[in-house]
Amino acid sequence: MIVIMNPKCKDESIKEVKDYVEALGLKTHLSQGETFCIVGLIGDTSKIDEDKMIAIGEVDKVLKVGEPYKKANRLVKPENSIIDVLGNKIGGKNLAIMAGPCSVESEEQIVEIAKKVKESGANFLRGGAFKPRTSPYSFQGLEKEGLRLLEVAKKETGLPIVTEIMATEDLNDFVDRVDVIQVGARNMQNFHLLKELGKTKTPILLKRGLSSTIEEWIMSAEYIMAGGNENVILCERGIRTFETYTRNTLDLSAIPVVKRLTHLPVIVDPSHATGKNWLVEPLAKSAVIAGADGLMIEVHNNPAKALCDGAQSIKPEEFSKIMDKIKVLAQVEGRDIEGI
Amino acid sequence: MIVIMNPKCKDESIKEVKDYVEALGLKTHLSQGETFCIVGLIGDTSKIDEDKMIAIGEVDKVLKVGEPYKKANRLVKPENSIIDVLGNKIGGKNLAIMAGPCSVESEEQIVEIAKKVKESGANFLRGGAFKPRTSPYSFQGLEKEGLRLLEVAKKETGLPIVTEIMATEDLNDFVDRVDVIQVGARNMQNFHLLKELGKTKTPILLKRGLSSTIEEWIMSAEYIMAGGNENVILCERGIRTFETYTRNTLDLSAIPVVKRLTHLPVIVDPSHATGKNWLVEPLAKSAVIAGADGLMIEVHNNPAKALCDGAQSIKPEEFSKIMDKIKVLAQVEGRDIEGI
Amino acid sequence: MIVIMNPKCKDESIKEVKDYVEALGLKTHLSQGETFCIVGLIGDTSKIDEDKMIAIGEVDKVLKVGEPYKKANRLVKPENSIIDVLGNKIGGKNLAIMAGPCSVESEEQIVEIAKKVKESGANFLRGGAFKPRTSPYSFQGLEKEGLRLLEVAKKETGLPIVTEIMATEDLNDFVDRVDVIQVGARNMQNFHLLKELGKTKTPILLKRGLSSTIEEWIMSAEYIMAGGNENVILCERGIRTFETYTRNTLDLSAIPVVKRLTHLPVIVDPSHATGKNWLVEPLAKSAVIAGADGLMIEVHNNPAKALCDGAQSIKPEEFSKIMDKIKVLAQVEGRDIEGI
Amino acid sequence: MIVIMNPKCKDESIKEVKDYVEALGLKTHLSQGETFCIVGLIGDTSKIDEDKMIAIGEVDKVLKVGEPYKKANRLVKPENSIIDVLGNKIGGKNLAIMAGPCSVESEEQIVEIAKKVKESGANFLRGGAFKPRTSPYSFQGLEKEGLRLLEVAKKETGLPIVTEIMATEDLNDFVDRVDVIQVGARNMQNFHLLKELGKTKTPILLKRGLSSTIEEWIMSAEYIMAGGNENVILCERGIRTFETYTRNTLDLSAIPVVKRLTHLPVIVDPSHATGKNWLVEPLAKSAVIAGADGLMIEVHNNPAKALCDGAQSIKPEEFSKIMDKIKVLAQVEGRDIEGI
Repeated sequence: MIVIMNPKCKDESIKEVKDYVEALGLKTHLSQGETFCIVGLIGDTSKIDEDKMIAIGEVDKVLKVGEPYKKANRLVKPENSIIDVLGNKIGGKNLAIMAGPCSVESEEQIVEIAKKVKESGANFLRGGAFKPRTSPYSFQGLEKEGLRLLEVAKKETGLPIVTEIMATEDLNDFVDRVDVIQVGARNMQNFHLLKELGKTKTPILLKRGLSSTIEEWIMSAEYIMAGGNENVILCERGIRTFETYTRNTLDLSAIPVVKRLTHLPVIVDPSHATGKNWLVEPLAKSAVIAGADGLMIEVHNNPAKALCDGAQSIKPEEFSKIMDKIKVLAQVEGRDIEGI
Repeated sequence: MIVIMNPKCKDESIKEVKDYVEALGLKTHLSQGETFCIVGLIGDTSKIDEDKMIAIGEVDKVLKVGEPYKKANRLVKPENSIIDVLGNKIGGKNLAIMAGPCSVESEEQIVEIAKKVKESGANFLRGGAFKPRTSPYSFQGLEKEGLRLLEVAKKETGLPIVTEIMATEDLNDFVDRVDVIQVGARNMQNFHLLKELGKTKTPILLKRGLSSTIEEWIMSAEYIMAGGNENVILCERGIRTFETYTRNTLDLSAIPVVKRLTHLPVIVDPSHATGKNWLVEPLAKSAVIAGADGLMIEVHNNPAKALCDGAQSIKPEEFSKIMDKIKVLAQVEGRDIEGI
Repeated sequence: MIVIMNPKCKDESIKEVKDYVEALGLKTHLSQGETFCIVGLIGDTSKIDEDKMIAIGEVDKVLKVGEPYKKANRLVKPENSIIDVLGNKIGGKNLAIMAGPCSVESEEQIVEIAKKVKESGANFLRGGAFKPRTSPYSFQGLEKEGLRLLEVAKKETGLPIVTEIMATEDLNDFVDRVDVIQVGARNMQNFHLLKELGKTKTPILLKRGLSSTIEEWIMSAEYIMAGGNENVILCERGIRTFETYTRNTLDLSAIPVVKRLTHLPVIVDPSHATGKNWLVEPLAKSAVIAGADGLMIEVHNNPAKALCDGAQSIKPEEFSKIMDKIKVLAQVEGRDIEGI
Repeated sequence: MIVIMNPKCKDESIKEVKDYVEALGLKTHLSQGETFCIVGLIGDTSKIDEDKMIAIGEVDKVLKVGEPYKKANRLVKPENSIIDVLGNKIGGKNLAIMAGPCSVESEEQIVEIAKKVKESGANFLRGGAFKPRTSPYSFQGLEKEGLRLLEVAKKETGLPIVTEIMATEDLNDFVDRVDVIQVGARNMQNFHLLKELGKTKTPILLKRGLSSTIEEWIMSAEYIMAGGNENVILCERGIRTFETYTRNTLDLSAIPVVKRLTHLPVIVDPSHATGKNWLVEPLAKSAVIAGADGLMIEVHNNPAKALCDGAQSIKPEEFSKIMDKIKVLAQVEGRDIEGI
């Protein structure tokens, strides 16, 4: 960390900075020119409060040299993290394909979709039991009954379950019954939830917030990891921009960036990112080529009757065709899809 | 709600739309031209799922005519809501001034600041006990001890307390001890928390999410109100844009917009919006002129030593000068600041 | 176009709308319910001014049913436009590869790069002669001398030239000497320039503006086409968002969207979009998979010495390796790269 | 300017940086720690190309200490610039009120509006002769005839004219006939136009681009000033964000920021920023309180019949009422409105 001070600053201001920093166990290195005055900080700067530094009257800017995350940092752990979920691996050479409906609606529905997506090559079943909805008057999911139906589908197909948690009160239930716990975009900075998830060992799929920078997203992963749970999978699902044709703007650059900065696996959700089912195929394919470790795709047996998010769902037959193309690209890229 | 269909759509597609809508108890009105085919929906459209409508093959667009919120809607309740907090009113002609430090740090600190801001005209004491921080390694607040210190300061000054909740597990504590419960920007769509807050009667200060549209913000208020708690105060605190000079971009247009669409009081937090203490005065003043029902301002007795967010804090003497100017503008605008 | 009016509006307001519309030669179709009042417009709505409609007191919203562009619209011309540039085709099955330095710096530089990129499979030479720079104190390009050097490189290699125009005063020069005239992101809504380009027959590469919606981008193409020049190639180069890790956010969803809405070819510039040379490869590859009709890639023989934009340039050897991978993907997707 | 290098970088990389910088006449100051290696640059860094620095292999980041603009910089000229337009002053204590229709439509229209806005306290007449329109099929303005009609209105009322230029071909005409030449948001980075305007002495009103940072906006002013024309007035007119309720998001924070960074006058256009006439009053008032040196307001005698932008126009009577309130606030803030 480098502190840029006013070149004409008083000696006592510099001393104030040094005192604050040295009290935290760091060393400082002063460098003064005619047009600048720089204090370099040596040691573990993660305890330093940037805003506090700026609040010291004559500090102009504080420049972070390193990244603020430790456990997620690729510098700390150069090899890719590979997360094993009931024998299905996420990360490394593996391509995780998570497919299923937006909401679990009935046993018949979830079991039928689970069978079909497995047949086409999916190795995880996704489905919402607790649903975050903008309106309190919209369908909120089958809740606990939804979890039960996911378990039925898992029993029938062997596919591990991925589903979203909304409340820490449900955490024990999720740990017992769910294979990958999803944190939705709206809860990416629900720090209390992240801390509680950090106390478990269950793999966590952490969606990027609608307006979260890549650094904030990684810092949310760091919250979970700092608590002791290093099984974190990141999921890019589109960011909010001025463009309204697509629901969000899928930021595919984030894939190679996150893979350079961290050792965590990253998957892509083209269904939520675009909100349009005809965009799922081109973006799913592009995501694989950009280096994604997996895909999360909404599949519904009857999109028109889906209780939520029908516009972005595709039918099992369409999913099957997309998977055929994904398999070709996976081979070109040297990726394996477990289970096929 | 108006459904725009493909002008060459099949009769069965139109029937599918009508069937779905009529099953929910609404009536439809068909209007067909050469270049358009429109189905108008008559009745309570809040149950209609827009995405589901679009998923029906030949629906092009769904246009909401009314607003999706009911209890917050000014059409439903034309007069301004006025929320009474221990005799201090928020809304109507009143101007609520909430001031205090970002974080509660010690009894001495919080009591001293409380006394000073009261003297300058503040009628609420704000201070963070539980702090949402991007990094797990940053100071997370004094937590329960912070609540206790706020109570001490309240006892000394009589100022009602405003502080942020992070976890539903703390809700009983907050209901017992806090006068206005703040929901932070990052939790604006933590729907589980909103539902729990809806079961209480404590006034809720709901900050706008970093990338939340005005409609989403009002819908989050609607979650609380739908649960039975109509004591909601909205708080504009800047949105995330491409501009990085200020921490966020304060959206002052949102004030007159929200006051037109809803009957709820709206206040403005210029400290978090800009992240720079020299911007607090001009934006606090502009907010009052734009029609805000109050202000939330960070005041610290020693910004350089503040444990968080020092850069945006002002000292009590500066706050006092700002208040003098606010009082002049309040008079011009015909607003009252309670307690002075 | 559909006009939504206040359901309780006066008959004279409806008449005012009808009069305005019918005076422009369109017909209207009135549909009135209890909760809505809709006027459907039948005929060529491109003359209708949406803002003017809204200004009529009791109009709530104006909904465009069709798209506001005609000549660019795929509904008007369902087959892909293919633009022939000295025998090199852009659009259809062809993949156009435009490579070269950000700025033309010397004869030796441009000729050497041109030869190398041709060898690796590029079929167009790009290079800036007139440079748009944020600062008036930055290098502004070799200007006319730059055009001359591009011509030398073209003579040596046979590669058609793509270069950016900044001023209508230079138009004759460009028409005489340049094969594809580029309009930069900052000039995408320089309507005077677009109109002048519409009077020529030279192919125009129209970059998307930093904060332009897809519709605005297509409307700028429409300006050129409405003037008589239908040889327009669109180029996605990243949009401005809150994320600052990459210079801009490459919007790959825009590729399939634009190809659905229009018949024009679309290429992608991963160099400017990201500003980081190590992101060029993954995003160039993803762009091809998303359906792009070509790529524009910055290549420099010595990035560290480049007079501008060195950070995003790659060396000829790196370009060659990227092209090897692009060729594999082109084959998978059934695309041809002319000249190889 | 400070160059942050890889702490383990080779000596030759440091030498490469030093050589490049010293060749431009600057001095360097090296500071090396265990975890950082910093090269401070001493001298005029405006010639340094940041991207080029980064392109040198082992440079991590380049940090600008000073601002990249010189002539616009308040450090260079601490007192406010005051621009005199036919005796009406813009800047300093003065409040410039520019009012008039979006488009000039007829002699009767423009003369009538000019008289009315003057009566209410406007001291400049604004009106579009050349109109930037998203669609080539929309009304493009009366063009030269529009300029003539503005001159008629000026003769009748004495109000100086403000109108937008679209093409450098029209520059001589504008210099002869227009008092303040407006550069629209879409042309803010039309650098060729800016350079040509820099050769004149006519005051330039430079609107902020839709997605321009404050620094880019000031740099565009610097283009004009570097050419020799220091009569630049900045105009905030809203930026593009994700919020769609208002047409743009008015960034009022930009007012105090720009006034701190530069000595140039800054005015605000609430009409274009919001696109809604009922938002003009609260935002015009807030802008004055935020420190704006003036306002640009659309006024039309019959908004419903306006050929463009009717939705954001207000009628002369409404303008008159707004002006009454503005006058009260001007007095509170110690500002003068010339001519009243």
